[in-house]
Amino acid sequence: MIILNGASSSGKSGIVRCLQSVLPDPWLAFGCDSFVDALPKKMWSSDGGIVFGDDGDVTVGEDFRTLEAAWTEGIAAMARAGARIIIDDVFLGAAASQHRWRTALADLPVLWVAVHCDPATAAGREIARGDRTPGMAAQQAPVVHTGVHYDLEVDTTHTESLACARTIAAHLG
Amino acid sequence: MIILNGASSSGKSGIVRCLQSVLPDPWLAFGCDSFVDALPKKMWSSDGGIVFGDDGDVTVGEDFRTLEAAWTEGIAAMARAGARIIIDDVFLGAAASQHRWRTALADLPVLWVAVHCDPATAAGREIARGDRTPGMAAQQAPVVHTGVHYDLEVDTTHTESLACARTIAAHLG
Amino acid sequence: MIILNGASSSGKSGIVRCLQSVLPDPWLAFGCDSFVDALPKKMWSSDGGIVFGDDGDVTVGEDFRTLEAAWTEGIAAMARAGARIIIDDVFLGAAASQHRWRTALADLPVLWVAVHCDPATAAGREIARGDRTPGMAAQQAPVVHTGVHYDLEVDTTHTESLACARTIAAHLG
Amino acid sequence: MIILNGASSSGKSGIVRCLQSVLPDPWLAFGCDSFVDALPKKMWSSDGGIVFGDDGDVTVGEDFRTLEAAWTEGIAAMARAGARIIIDDVFLGAAASQHRWRTALADLPVLWVAVHCDPATAAGREIARGDRTPGMAAQQAPVVHTGVHYDLEVDTTHTESLACARTIAAHLG
Repeated sequence: MIILNGASSSGKSGIVRCLQSVLPDPWLAFGCDSFVDALPKKMWSSDGGIVFGDDGDVTVGEDFRTLEAAWTEGIAAMARAGARIIIDDVFLGAAASQHRWRTALADLPVLWVAVHCDPATAAGREIARGDRTPGMAAQQAPVVHTGVHYDLEVDTTHTESLACARTIAAHLG
Repeated sequence: MIILNGASSSGKSGIVRCLQSVLPDPWLAFGCDSFVDALPKKMWSSDGGIVFGDDGDVTVGEDFRTLEAAWTEGIAAMARAGARIIIDDVFLGAAASQHRWRTALADLPVLWVAVHCDPATAAGREIARGDRTPGMAAQQAPVVHTGVHYDLEVDTTHTESLACARTIAAHLG
Repeated sequence: MIILNGASSSGKSGIVRCLQSVLPDPWLAFGCDSFVDALPKKMWSSDGGIVFGDDGDVTVGEDFRTLEAAWTEGIAAMARAGARIIIDDVFLGAAASQHRWRTALADLPVLWVAVHCDPATAAGREIARGDRTPGMAAQQAPVVHTGVHYDLEVDTTHTESLACARTIAAHLG
Repeated sequence: MIILNGASSSGKSGIVRCLQSVLPDPWLAFGCDSFVDALPKKMWSSDGGIVFGDDGDVTVGEDFRTLEAAWTEGIAAMARAGARIIIDDVFLGAAASQHRWRTALADLPVLWVAVHCDPATAAGREIARGDRTPGMAAQQAPVVHTGVHYDLEVDTTHTESLACARTIAAHLG
């Protein structure tokens, strides 16, 4: 498994698509976006679910955490059943989020990758993509990497997604 | 778990969103569309992946089947970890597809639901939605239910998604 | 030109795609959705722009009206330049909205079509589609047809989009 | 009016959204993508319409050109009616495409902007975005700027969309 962690608009999705393109074997891609899409719409603004604040703040509640834990177990089971999997996630809980993944994945080999991006650059890309609440990048950038351990770190500020993907692919050997 | 099976444009996705709305507990929704989205784009036209023919024919290859099996195991594991899950699928293999799910889900309680739609009506809705290859509905309708056993059957030809969802929810008790 | 007017989730877009399919000549389709997409994102919540309330209420401001008037002039000019055009709109201003179009279109032949849908049915379809604020259908249904004059009225409550499109196409002769 | 011309995946859309954000007045954005969306789906593969080849080649037919001419007239009329408009286009006909716009816009003041991007970089971004036929960027890059005259040229290879937008906005004065 490959797990990418980075703030909103740091460029994770682009790297994932490039990884799926450059890696010779087929890899499945999941992430916090596909998980949120799987939730009932009524949880997209409820206290137990996930609330996207007007300033880009994202807060998640207990129901969200419970379902996310089951989802994480399921992803681990897919990997144990033989699927190669790339996850892109935003560790809102930083080291605690990594610990949650580690516990679920236990014995599975994982390549942990940090996706960095200069916050001002990410804020500009947030405007350019037009489908995110302005402020998410700035809110998340300072917190998601705190205390997280990585095998590899990439930075999309001056490096294209495809080049980052090639660096990651090379690391897999 | 709830598993909906029906041809393309028979109305499964609408029923899923209504189920997520009317059921009091939070249910996660996955399906063949979210699985295909997780695949590398290069498998969307390769022999081992999934090929969407110009006439609406869909054929899947060995790599697709291998990853799908792992994905199915993962979904089962999510359910075992406590998540309520709704699956919408197109049983291109009919009874064999159901058997594959049954094997993976083993001990888990499942509500099997057929989603029917008059093929001519589904073909019209295919034009109305505008994002599917014309012909998929007509190709799939005659084959996906052959030999499949259900707890409940709904028909969207003359019944709205929300009413179908309420029927299914009532059956859950 | 063909102008469809109906509340949110009454089924206008599906009818438009079916019309484009069944009409032998090529028709361009524009509407309030494509106009809103053309606006700066910052107008999607500003007082002068368009505000989508949490209860499905939609209010538009002066900047919106000014740009919309220019857009309407442009659509009229496309028609005068020879393009066949289908518009789907929500007449939030009811008869005043029709008057605005009439003034801009002046000499151009227009087929005015009402798209009705039982409000409870539309509210269910709003849940089924999952991409609209719940309540828009219920808010708009009582007001958009007041005092508007039509050549033809269709009702999607019990009639499929394709059948409605065929009725409209037959009326064009 | 501002008209941006550049090959597929050169970064035009991102610049447009940033321009709409940084410019104090509200500007409407249209372009070849919104025009293609307005066409009947059946023209997306017909000889008279627009054909997207498997190798990224795009060819357009006579019906496309006729409707496009009317659309161009309509955009000009919107501008004459007072709307500020940003167009992003791909001049497949290079200087002939510019000439077509100039004729329609006649008296209107236009800022012509080239959007350049190193073709290899654009090809990588095409993979990263995942929604374009691979090869479009490479096919279009060598031809779209031939003989076209500009007021301003920006290059997204090493410059972010927001910075390019600020350069363009500064030029407007």
